[in-house]
Parts: sequence; C-alpha cells; structure tokens
Amino acid sequence: MLLVLFAVEDIIGEKLERLRGSPDSMQEKIHLPPDRYFGPDPQQKAIAMELYSQAKDLPLVCPHGHVDPRLFADPDCSFGTPTELLIIPDHYVFRMLYSQGIPLESLGIPRLDGGPVEKDHRKIWQIFAENFYLFRGTPTGMWLTHELHEVFGVQEKLTGESAQRIYDQIASCLARPEFRPRALFDRFRIEVLTTTDAATDTLEHHQRIRATWDRRVIPCFRPDGVVNIDTPGWRENVQRLSAVSGIEVTSYRALVRALEERRRFFKEMGATSTDHGVLEPYTEELSEQEAEAIFARAMRGEASAADARRFTGHMLMESARMSIEDGLVMQIHPGSFRNHNLPLYERFGPDKGADIPIATEFTRNLRPLLNKYGNDTRLTLILFMLDESTLSRELAPLAGHYPALKLGPPWWFHDSLNGMMRFRELVTETAGLYNTVGFNDDTRAFPSIPARHDLARRVDANWLAGLVVRGVVDIYDAHEMMQDCAYRLAKKAYKL
Amino acid sequence: MLLVLFAVEDIIGEKLERLRGSPDSMQEKIHLPPDRYFGPDPQQKAIAMELYSQAKDLPLVCPHGHVDPRLFADPDCSFGTPTELLIIPDHYVFRMLYSQGIPLESLGIPRLDGGPVEKDHRKIWQIFAENFYLFRGTPTGMWLTHELHEVFGVQEKLTGESAQRIYDQIASCLARPEFRPRALFDRFRIEVLTTTDAATDTLEHHQRIRATWDRRVIPCFRPDGVVNIDTPGWRENVQRLSAVSGIEVTSYRALVRALEERRRFFKEMGATSTDHGVLEPYTEELSEQEAEAIFARAMRGEASAADARRFTGHMLMESARMSIEDGLVMQIHPGSFRNHNLPLYERFGPDKGADIPIATEFTRNLRPLLNKYGNDTRLTLILFMLDESTLSRELAPLAGHYPALKLGPPWWFHDSLNGMMRFRELVTETAGLYNTVGFNDDTRAFPSIPARHDLARRVDANWLAGLVVRGVVDIYDAHEMMQDCAYRLAKKAYKL
Amino acid sequence: MLLVLFAVEDIIGEKLERLRGSPDSMQEKIHLPPDRYFGPDPQQKAIAMELYSQAKDLPLVCPHGHVDPRLFADPDCSFGTPTELLIIPDHYVFRMLYSQGIPLESLGIPRLDGGPVEKDHRKIWQIFAENFYLFRGTPTGMWLTHELHEVFGVQEKLTGESAQRIYDQIASCLARPEFRPRALFDRFRIEVLTTTDAATDTLEHHQRIRATWDRRVIPCFRPDGVVNIDTPGWRENVQRLSAVSGIEVTSYRALVRALEERRRFFKEMGATSTDHGVLEPYTEELSEQEAEAIFARAMRGEASAADARRFTGHMLMESARMSIEDGLVMQIHPGSFRNHNLPLYERFGPDKGADIPIATEFTRNLRPLLNKYGNDTRLTLILFMLDESTLSRELAPLAGHYPALKLGPPWWFHDSLNGMMRFRELVTETAGLYNTVGFNDDTRAFPSIPARHDLARRVDANWLAGLVVRGVVDIYDAHEMMQDCAYRLAKKAYKL
Repeated sequence: MLLVLFAVEDIIGEKLERLRGSPDSMQEKIHLPPDRYFGPDPQQKAIAMELYSQAKDLPLVCPHGHVDPRLFADPDCSFGTPTELLIIPDHYVFRMLYSQGIPLESLGIPRLDGGPVEKDHRKIWQIFAENFYLFRGTPTGMWLTHELHEVFGVQEKLTGESAQRIYDQIASCLARPEFRPRALFDRFRIEVLTTTDAATDTLEHHQRIRATWDRRVIPCFRPDGVVNIDTPGWRENVQRLSAVSGIEVTSYRALVRALEERRRFFKEMGATSTDHGVLEPYTEELSEQEAEAIFARAMRGEASAADARRFTGHMLMESARMSIEDGLVMQIHPGSFRNHNLPLYERFGPDKGADIPIATEFTRNLRPLLNKYGNDTRLTLILFMLDESTLSRELAPLAGHYPALKLGPPWWFHDSLNGMMRFRELVTETAGLYNTVGFNDDTRAFPSIPARHDLARRVDANWLAGLVVRGVVDIYDAHEMMQDCAYRLAKKAYKL
Repeated sequence: MLLVLFAVEDIIGEKLERLRGSPDSMQEKIHLPPDRYFGPDPQQKAIAMELYSQAKDLPLVCPHGHVDPRLFADPDCSFGTPTELLIIPDHYVFRMLYSQGIPLESLGIPRLDGGPVEKDHRKIWQIFAENFYLFRGTPTGMWLTHELHEVFGVQEKLTGESAQRIYDQIASCLARPEFRPRALFDRFRIEVLTTTDAATDTLEHHQRIRATWDRRVIPCFRPDGVVNIDTPGWRENVQRLSAVSGIEVTSYRALVRALEERRRFFKEMGATSTDHGVLEPYTEELSEQEAEAIFARAMRGEASAADARRFTGHMLMESARMSIEDGLVMQIHPGSFRNHNLPLYERFGPDKGADIPIATEFTRNLRPLLNKYGNDTRLTLILFMLDESTLSRELAPLAGHYPALKLGPPWWFHDSLNGMMRFRELVTETAGLYNTVGFNDDTRAFPSIPARHDLARRVDANWLAGLVVRGVVDIYDAHEMMQDCAYRLAKKAYKL
Repeated sequence: MLLVLFAVEDIIGEKLERLRGSPDSMQEKIHLPPDRYFGPDPQQKAIAMELYSQAKDLPLVCPHGHVDPRLFADPDCSFGTPTELLIIPDHYVFRMLYSQGIPLESLGIPRLDGGPVEKDHRKIWQIFAENFYLFRGTPTGMWLTHELHEVFGVQEKLTGESAQRIYDQIASCLARPEFRPRALFDRFRIEVLTTTDAATDTLEHHQRIRATWDRRVIPCFRPDGVVNIDTPGWRENVQRLSAVSGIEVTSYRALVRALEERRRFFKEMGATSTDHGVLEPYTEELSEQEAEAIFARAMRGEASAADARRFTGHMLMESARMSIEDGLVMQIHPGSFRNHNLPLYERFGPDKGADIPIATEFTRNLRPLLNKYGNDTRLTLILFMLDESTLSRELAPLAGHYPALKLGPPWWFHDSLNGMMRFRELVTETAGLYNTVGFNDDTRAFPSIPARHDLARRVDANWLAGLVVRGVVDIYDAHEMMQDCAYRLAKKAYKL
C-alpha cells in the first residue's frame, strides 16, 4: 500500500510499458481495450464493467435515426465500396476533412451542377486514411475504429501506409452475403429501427420491407417540408401532399386534414412517432382566420419571415393536439441553423456538415404549447437540444415538472463521450432519470449503429458506477438504472 | 501493487461483493456510507474525510431560507403527519411525482377552489413511497434519505412494500416532544436561522419567539410585493404597507419612506439582510418625477410592462442606497419565471414546482447600480443565479472586481452535488473563494436543514481535497478554506 | 490489495501525514510538487508525467501577448522594484485586492489626475502579502507562486510575516544582470515573442531590438483604435495614422489604403498576424458608398452606435480580405465589455480589472465573413471567446467545418486549470485538436510567461493522460498530440 503511493511513478512506468506495448507497436495496431471509456479508478471501473456487461448484449432499440429504408427493401442490396459506405454519405467524416482544407470534390461528394469530382474510391480512401489522425479524441474517430475492428475485423490502425490493405479487407467483406444490410441488422441484434420520412413520402420501401421481411423497420412522420412555409420548395411539397393524401391542400384547414390523413397512414405502416425540425421552439396559437390568412399568403409566395415563424409555432401546437388524439409520440429538434455556408450549399446542397447550432430559448417559447397540452398525460413530447446551457437552466426544470415532457438524449455534436456525461450530470439532479428517454443513435450510417449504442452504454455504465462509488445510489438501483438507460426507457417512451 | 493494476477486475469484483452485500440486501436497506459524495480516489477521499470531519459538527449558520417562523413561536407546535411534514408542503417532492403523471390532487395538495383532494395521508404516503425511485440521483433523494435515516432512524429503503412501516415509525417520532421544532433546532445545532418575510409582515411570530425563547431566529426584509408594481395584488399590498408602517403610501416618496421605516423595524427585530426577487437584474436610476409618474400610473392600474421593469430596476438602486445607510446586506434572486404553468397556477396557486429559469444577463443590467454603489465598501450585495452560463462569464468577473459584490451559493436546482461542484470550479479561479458567502439552505423544509448543510460540507471537502491532491492548494490552506466554506464566510458576509 | 480498499482511510492518513509534513510546516513553505495539477489516479498521473516530461523543456512559442517591447529595446533595461514588477502593472493581481475593499491608491496605481497614491513600495508589498491568501485556487496564485519559486528562488510562502524578507530576496535578484529582460528571455527559452501594437505605432522599440539583438520579438498589427469609430480619441488616432502612413486619411478609401500600408510595414518588421478587439463579432459587408458615408459622419463626430457597429463589422471583413492578400493571420478577441466601472475608469483609466464579459453570438454574426472568406484556405482566422457556452454550441461546430477558421486557446479568465480543461473537453470532440492553435500566454507580465506555459502544458498532459487511461487515444497518439499542444500547433497556425 505504501508502495502504491510512494513509488507509484517508477512502478507504474514499468507496468504501463507492458500494458500498452511500445509506442512503436501502438503506432500500428488498433487499440480497443475492453474497459475503454471508463474512468481510471479501479473500484469505479470494476463496477462500470459489471454494469456494462449486463447491458452490452441487450437488443438495440433505435427509435430515431436517418437510415435509408431502401437498404432493407431489397434483400440483395449492398453497401458499395468502402468509400461509399464510410465517407461519401457521412457528413461527420467529410466536414472534418473539409475543415482542414481538403476540397469536397476530392472526396467524391457530388456537385449539384454535376461538375467533376473524384471518382477513384481508392484515392479518396487514401486521403481519408492519411488524415484519420484528425479524428483523434472525437466520437467519429471512436465509432469508425469500433466499426473497422468489430464489424470488419480490421486489426491495423488506419494510416496512409495501411490504407489500401484495409480498403481491400473491407471491400472483400462487403462482397459477402453476411455483410448485406439485412444480415447486419440481425447480427447487430436490432429490435426495432425507426427511419425519418417526409409527410409526403409514399413509404414504398417500408411497404416492401413489410411485405418481404419480418423485422421491425418503421417510419417516423416528419412534416417540416409542408408546415415550415419558408422551406425551399414548400409549394411543391404541398402539391405532393395533396397527391399522396388525396386531399386538395388549398387552405390551412385542408392542410390539417391532409396531415391527419398522412399520420393515419404512417401509423398503419408502424409509425409510433413524429419529428419536427425548427430553428427555434417558438409556439403560439393562431386563430383559424390568422392561420388561413398566413397560409394564403404563403401560397401566393408573399409570406414574411414573421409569418413563417408564427405559422410553424402554431403547427407545433396543432401537432401536439394531433398526438393527443392519435397517440404518436412527438419529437422536436430545434436550434440548428441549416446550410450556414451558402456557397457550399449552392454547390453541394444540404447536409454537408455546415449546420451550426444557435442559442435556444425554451422557457418562454414553449409556454403556450405546454400551458395548453403539457398537463395532458396522453401526450409524450420529447425535446432535443444543441445548446447545452439550456440543460440545467431550462430543460431539466421543465421536464421535472410537466407530465407530457421528456428529454431526448444528447443530439448530434453532443452525442459523444463527454457530451453524454455532461447531459447526465446537468439533467439528472433536477429532472431525474425517468424524465429522459434512453438513447437515440440518430444516424444515417447504418454500420455505425452498434458502435454508437456501445459508446452510450459504456458512458452510462461509467456514470452509474461513479454514482455508486460516491454513495449516491446503491448497486441495486444502479442495476435497475442501467437497464433503463440501455433498453427500457427508449422502448417505453416511444411506445415500442 | 502490480496486483492492483493487473488483476484489479477479478479482485475488486470479490471485494465489491462484500462491500455492498448482495444486490438483494441492497434492495432493502438504506445505504449511507460515511464517505459518501467523495470522489473514489483513495488519497483524495482520505483528505476529504479529514477536512469534512473537521467541519461536520460546526454549528449551522442559516442566513437565507423560507422556514415558517410559526414553527418556533409556540413551544408545543408540532409537524403533523409524515405526509404533512415531507410531501404536502415540499414542491421539490411533488413536482417530480407530478412530472410522471401523478395528479396533485392525489397528493393532497389543496386546491384554490376548495375542490376535493386526497385526505388520507397514508394513501398519499403510499404513492410517494412507490415512486421514490424517481428521486434516484437527485438532491431531493439524498436529502430525504439522510433525513429519514439521521433524523428519524429509518433503516429500510422507502418502497411500496416498506411504506406503511416507515410511516408508523416517523409518526411515532413526531408524537414525541424531542421532535418538536424547537427541540430539533437545538439537536440540529442551529446557530442562527433567517426566515424570509414580506415588507408588510407584522413579524408577530418573530415577536413571540423573541419574547419566549433565547435562540436566534431572525427575519429578512423582502419588499417584492410592494416594489414590483406588476405583482398580483400590488395595490392591496401597498395599503397593507400603509397600515403597518403608519405612513400613508400615496406617492413614490411615501413608498420610500415607508420602506425605510419597515427596514428600521425589521432591523430592530434582528434582521441583517434584505432580499429581492426579480425576473431580470435590470437596474436604472429614475428621476424623482419619473418614479412618481410611474407610481401614479400603477396606483391607477395603468402601468405598462415597461413601467414595471423600470420601476423595479430603480427600486433595486434605492434598496442599495438604503443598505449603505442602514447596513442591511442586500440579496438579489433573479431569473425565475414564476408560475410558468398557468392552468396549474389557477388551480393550486404559486410555489407548485412550476417556476422555470430563464437566461439571465448581469453585465449590462447591473451596471447602473454597480457604477453608483458597487465601489462603496459599506454595501454588501449578494447575487444568486439560476443560469450557470453566467458563472464564469459574468458573475465571477464582476465579483472579482467590485468591492460591494459577493456571490451567493448555488440556488434551487443547482443546490446539488454536481451543481455545487460546478459552482466552485466555475467561480473560484476568477472570483476567488473570498468573494463568495458560504452556504444557504434556502429551504421551507425545516427537518431537511442538516441534510442540506451536510451535503454542502461534503461537496466542499471533496472539492478542496481535489485541490490538495492536485497541488493547487496545500493542506494548511485547505483546512482554512474548509472552515471558511462551512462556517466563517456565511457569518461574515451576512453580519451574523 | 484488499488492504487498499478496506483499510484505506487509516493507512492513507498516516501516509498523508508524511507526504505533506505537518500543517504547521505547510503554513511556511511553498509547496510545488513535481506532479502538481495532474489528477490523482496513479496510472493517469504516471502517463501525464511521461507526456509532460517530454514537453516541458520545449522552447516557448508566444504568438500573442502584451509584453512591452521597450523591455528588450535597451539591453540594460531593468524591472524596477518587486512591486513595480508584480503588482502595479498587473490588473489580474490588483483587481482581486480591490474586490476585497483595498483602494487602488493604496496599491500605488497611478491616478489620471495625478492625485496622491502610495509611493512606498514596501508598504504596498506588505498589503499584497497579507492578502495573498485571496489567490488560493486561482491561476494568478499558481503563476505567482511558480514565479516566486522558480524565477526568484523563494522558498517561503508569501504572508504578512514573510513579506519583507521575500521583497529583499526579489529586489536583490532584480539588481543582478541575469535578471535583465534580455537575460530572462534566454533563460526562459523563448523562441519567439509577439507583442501587440496599435496600427499607428512607429514600432521604434522593435526597430531598436532588430538593430541590436538577434532574438525574435515581433509586432502584431492591432487596428482597433482606427477602425472602431466609437473608440475614445478616434479622430486623433486617424490623424496619427495619416502621419505614420504618409497617406492623408480623409476618406474610407484612404483609410483602407493607409491600413494596407501599415500592414506592409508591420510585416516588414516581422509581424505574422493581426488582432481585432470587438464587443461583438458582428460582420456585414457595406457598399463603398455606405462605408464612405459612415466614415464621413464619424469624422464630423456624428456617427451613431449603429454606424459604429456596422463599420466595425465591415472592417472585420476588409481585414479578412487583406489577410488573404498579405498572408497575415487574423485574430478576433470579442465579448469584453471594456471599462465597466465608469467611476474607476475616470479615476485610473483603462485596464484596471473592470473589463467584464458579455454573452456572445458567433453563428449569425460571423456568417457574412465566413460565407465570403471562410472557404478560402489562404485565410487563417483565429477566434477567441470569453463566453464558454459558445464552445460546444457554436465555435467547435464552426471550426469543425470552415477551412479558414481555428479556435484560439481559452482567453483571460478562462486561461486557468479548469478553464483549459473545459476548453479541451468542450471543443475537441467536435472540432478535433487540429482546428485549435496551441497556447497563447497573452500576458503583460513577462516573468510570468514560463509559469503560464508550464500550467498549460501540465493541463494538456493531464488531459491527454485521461484520454489514454480511458482508451480514447493510445499512447502513441498522445505523444504526438502533446507535441502539437505544446509547440507545433502554435508555430504552424501563426506561421512562425
């Protein structure tokens, strides 16, 4: 014992050498210790391991995300090349490369004008590998490393030197039937996977899935394109809504009816939730006449920014009313300034890593909605945030009071080792664990799903172990809470 | 030693089993380890224990809170049933139950219209016990557990199964003389207890206490009801002020005189401080004419929201002037949006767990006051906050500069294990420890006072031990700082 | 091992006693353990020590600061008395003393009106020493202790009792040639030191340095006084600009030409960067006519606050354009409300510890500039902040996308043990390490430079060791990142 404290530096030095091998060997091999992401205290780590081991093999409940349902509609669908799988569709990956001066064209990101971009996927992969050090300490780095190692069996670290060997290895995996999306769905032990779908979507892929496969892939109803009247292409969206709903949307009243009809259809196709992306969570109840007047102005292309804000705020309230009636869980994702980089947007379109958060206000903005519907236990309203300063200030106090309100997990930039830990620490003391809803992977990158859930489960195990060693909760409670975090809360909140 | 690092998981597993007993036994008994709330590092924990042991039995200085003085006015006053003691008056408790869909009526919370609410206190207690798991990891859970165990000797965890046995045990305690408020005051080693009292209060209970008991229970002067002209019932409050002060308050000038008179009376009754609840800490100096004009509009019921904001801002400045003259310490509690849930407010009244923080600005808002009075060493102005983003950004820099300014401890939602730790970490580096004022329990729940002080002392001991093991301060300084945190700073700042 | 966990409190107690000596001895001697500022976990600490030991002797790159170049212009320049060295010029020091009621006059701070202030430097030193406990747990305390011990060999803690002995010791050092600024520059192993200089500065001291000494002390171009039209004395500054540039600045167009000319001169004198202090990072592109009209109004003393805001916002964009053309790295320091304490400002002038941060918005404010120049890899734009809530919300997402953008290290109040740790934890997951630029000491206090770099290197070593023990990065990557943090990033970002 005295040894521990007096001579710790000498002894540990030796020990560390063995633990980690020499720096040179480290340079070459992926390092994924079984106790990764846990704090170093031995007692806490042992408890974290115990809690994690109990949760790690639970089925994956994925109640919110952006995986393309097409992947599962055709049993023979494949992921394409490693570059098509891991780089081109993933703005988490290419935004970091872009931030260091690497043009999106050289990464094969398609241009809207069809202009030339790199077509050689091995060349793109090489650039990615040479710059993979940029992801040190980032969740993208953690997920990708997990994915390479656990899904594709890669042993080497990804560097310029190893790039092509690893490309070969992944490519040879992807050619095999057990790496088809449907096969991976089972290998990943996914219990349910929710996609996100426009109100105007025909859900044809979901229909194919239901017809040909007995796994649970369900849509989520996202009406942004038809209720946010300042969306580019809003009028076309409204026409499409008319077409798919069979209701001629020429008035506000018809819009509401068409939305109700679409929700009915989505529900029939398995949906249990809706989702609403807004710049700010402003809510306001308009009179029927005001709503009709704004709708008419929007149809004439004459709606102002203030009109758009009010109309969206009103439609959030309408959505809450519909949720009370049809039982769909309502989600709000506010606070992202979309397409911040206008020249880039004009060249490459949306979702290119240039959506930037803004400060968000919930207390005053949500009051009309919460005053009208927040006391109704039939409503489940799940709030997400990109502004962590609201967690202890607004969101936890709101969720710790209103029966209808629950807090979604840390979103986007905050879905990370530190972000998830901060969320637990800032929220739990005021809102409790039971006003939160477990984990969402919220990803487009299907093969990253196990890595994301694994990271979340590890963070929660470590957080709970920290509570146990501090005597905040006992081990019995921690075991219960672990099950809640990893599985039960998501299933219950989303009615799955 | 090598053992520690190599085989830690196996060995710790065994050890943990013994430390915590089996999960089943955990399910049944309250777990309050003597080293609770300290970090797990053995060296830090040992120092934390040493610092804590030196502070844990210091008398409790309670310079700000909301205990009802009535409890001490009559020597035979009793707390009623366990439900009347712990649930019905405590919005920290019932807001969490309410957030999970339990109606306030079923918890016995009285309705304003006198409508029916649950009267069976054992039934209410049963609901509370069955849902006590909601408080896992919350300060309310920590306080209640401490209170049950340390004040009432409860050994079992509170669950649906143990509910009625624990009810019996508490009820039998409450029937005994040593559980009367005055007896607990002594048992808790309270040196001074400050209540919060409206400017119009007659302080009759304080008068009775002074006449019949030699302990120190003192009022704090809170003029919100007469200086915030948008308070519901403001004109009635002004009439009451006229009545108790003997000054006919028909003008701004008379209002100031009446306030000065009441402050004199409060001081005579032992007060050393004032308190000011405001939505935002806006300050502005009005001319005499402007102040009179707004006052006149308010008397006619014609004051605007802007009038109210300016008048409150002006009255904060006037209060600072009065504090310089009469020596009363001035407190500001800004940033709570009161009664956010309007339907609930209309049914149950204020203080029902529906006050929600808003983002708060101090730098510009307080400038007029600080420029006029902040350099005056006769003034002590103590600021509280509900918006943690202001701690390192505005409050610590302000307190680290203006002689008059000090920072109050983490308030309300932030008076928690993590909240207090964040406060120390965000404030100390810029403001130092000596521009803070120790701990406030700020509670209505008298029997929770020892639990709250104990948690605060443990957090500070752990924080200071963290500084010692990191070599930031040495053990000598840490001992001094511990005494400051637990006792000396509060006593000095509040002139007790 | 079992011992460790079961009996840890008894054993550690004994051990601690020896580790730290008795509290009494602690009271007397400076305590600067070699493993200071590292977390207590033995494994993490060992790795931190290893990483730190590899970086601690690297040369100091100082790319941004406020050291007076006069110190190096004359080889025989000396620092004066200990009080002139450590107290009178350092607002970090005297603001804390002032916040506790000690008048600035008694600390020898010169009054603008030439009124009497304390002249006895030993008396000032005595006050400082008696109140040195106020700096417990603050970065100023850490830096001063390091400086006293490492630069001047002081062994005793600074107290009222030891004050005059320590004064003697420092004074005797300062009398010796090896304590001249130029000698300390070499002893501190400074590779490059950047000062901050007004656009109108003749750089005469820099010219003297270049003519007489072969060390690298370079200017940084700061045009605030001529581009922020609401600066007190703006018209005089513009006259001075005309004089030094040889361009008659009677129009906006001439202002731009004069600035370009001065930048050319600064570059010739070694400058690699510019710096811009603004209240908010608002940017907007004005038309030539608008810019001329505002300039004309400003010359007539008729510019409004809105004019000033727009003109400054436009000049930030112009500066970005110039940086693309001449290659100077552009820095923005926004969010400080300067001279908050008006009576103090009128008595003592600027930089007296009364600059207070305000909430800052980057996402919308910087959009015009970033949309126009942020995709240009020739631009390096380094942002600083005083509002930590922007780190994970706005700054990391922006820096993780725009090629031109990098984040400066934690500034001012946040340049501290906890502040630097928070910065790494809030920024790295989204922006990565490689969109940050290493450390800036940003100090006027030349002899504190080694202390500041040492603290930063320790924080980074501890942070990286934390990543290693959690398995987030491996030891190989950590070694690379340590070199980046301590040396390479600053050198590269500032083109040094």
